[in-house]
Amino acid sequence: MDKEKFNVIVFSGDMDKVLAAFILATTAASMGMEVNMFFTFWGLNVIRKKKFTSGKNILQKLMNFMNKGGADRLTLSKFNMMGMGPAMMKKMMKNSKVPGIPEMIQISKDLGVKFIACTTSFAFMGFEKSDFIEGVDSFAGAATYLQLAREGKVSYFI
Amino acid sequence: MDKEKFNVIVFSGDMDKVLAAFILATTAASMGMEVNMFFTFWGLNVIRKKKFTSGKNILQKLMNFMNKGGADRLTLSKFNMMGMGPAMMKKMMKNSKVPGIPEMIQISKDLGVKFIACTTSFAFMGFEKSDFIEGVDSFAGAATYLQLAREGKVSYFI
Amino acid sequence: MDKEKFNVIVFSGDMDKVLAAFILATTAASMGMEVNMFFTFWGLNVIRKKKFTSGKNILQKLMNFMNKGGADRLTLSKFNMMGMGPAMMKKMMKNSKVPGIPEMIQISKDLGVKFIACTTSFAFMGFEKSDFIEGVDSFAGAATYLQLAREGKVSYFI
Repeated sequence: MDKEKFNVIVFSGDMDKVLAAFILATTAASMGMEVNMFFTFWGLNVIRKKKFTSGKNILQKLMNFMNKGGADRLTLSKFNMMGMGPAMMKKMMKNSKVPGIPEMIQISKDLGVKFIACTTSFAFMGFEKSDFIEGVDSFAGAATYLQLAREGKVSYFI
Repeated sequence: MDKEKFNVIVFSGDMDKVLAAFILATTAASMGMEVNMFFTFWGLNVIRKKKFTSGKNILQKLMNFMNKGGADRLTLSKFNMMGMGPAMMKKMMKNSKVPGIPEMIQISKDLGVKFIACTTSFAFMGFEKSDFIEGVDSFAGAATYLQLAREGKVSYFI
Repeated sequence: MDKEKFNVIVFSGDMDKVLAAFILATTAASMGMEVNMFFTFWGLNVIRKKKFTSGKNILQKLMNFMNKGGADRLTLSKFNMMGMGPAMMKKMMKNSKVPGIPEMIQISKDLGVKFIACTTSFAFMGFEKSDFIEGVDSFAGAATYLQLAREGKVSYFI
């Protein structure tokens, strides 16, 4: 029998929201559910390699220079304070042994969580497959994701 | 037999999140699902007519002057930069032939997506039915929406 | 027979989003559903007592001093304007007899809505059970919540 599905759209690239997504995803996987994480828009930053910039034209390069990729470079949804907030939060997480986003990616992969990168948003942002980390299982659009959501039990937009 | 329902609460008025909501909604409709979009709070801006302001008293008028309505006047959730971010994003979408929000509204209506405007939030924000575009199918409260969500398969809060 | 479950993760501590969560929760409870609200991250502020600060070390105390608790001290997700936005919004809600967050808490408790405080996030933020209001029904982690979500009908991440 197929496993129950837990699907989550990671739209946000904010460290705090992404952390919540990973806590739900890894918990669901530990409970024996099939977990699919669909990264889109700002959420693509979580699974982007750290590069100076990406994109095919100057506009995309400029946007993607501001909109930095890399799991350890995410900012907070509030109290960002020029990077001081994320640094404080990372320290607080470390002190309490809460895994950071790069560790969460590793734990998720170990638990068999599937990572899908949204091709719709990455078309207009100028990303290419080579801009993403190895852990990405597939590149697909909204229809693929919605099909999983229809078959699934619980699904969030974060 | 009734179609499977896809329901989405559009709470946000941020261009990027609203775009994600429309991509999901139009994709679900293309896949043969019944789609209901419930616009509430800042999301009401998406389906408001462009007027100088709205509201019944000075407080509401002031809030609604800042909180501008109109599908082509939405701002971004980040990198807003006094309007430069939204302009860049619109240009990037256009370059990649990704429809803008006004086009998304038209595509949604062509696909039979239902638009519901939340009467609870528009009461205290001082809106009237005449503040909204023609594409709105009904004006209803949270109970109507939740009934759809209970009958539905997939539902998001965006 | 068990009641249908409506579950909501209150991640945000923004007054406008929290208000939306309570409108959905109280409406679902009025419709006869079992309602569980799972407060996590910034959402914990909704159910925190008003104290000067909380936390076990200087870093947590500093973060929790900025990140104020108390249902009547929440800020808006936009138009915050040094507190002027929330004051305007509260006045608009009052004028239209829309309950504020402290009243929403009371209404929710009267309707039997269950409040769960997320122990995962409160570990690293340094909260203790005594930092929370009496209305909290239980303290639990993501696994407890996900189990409710699996059994439930509708579930949101706000």
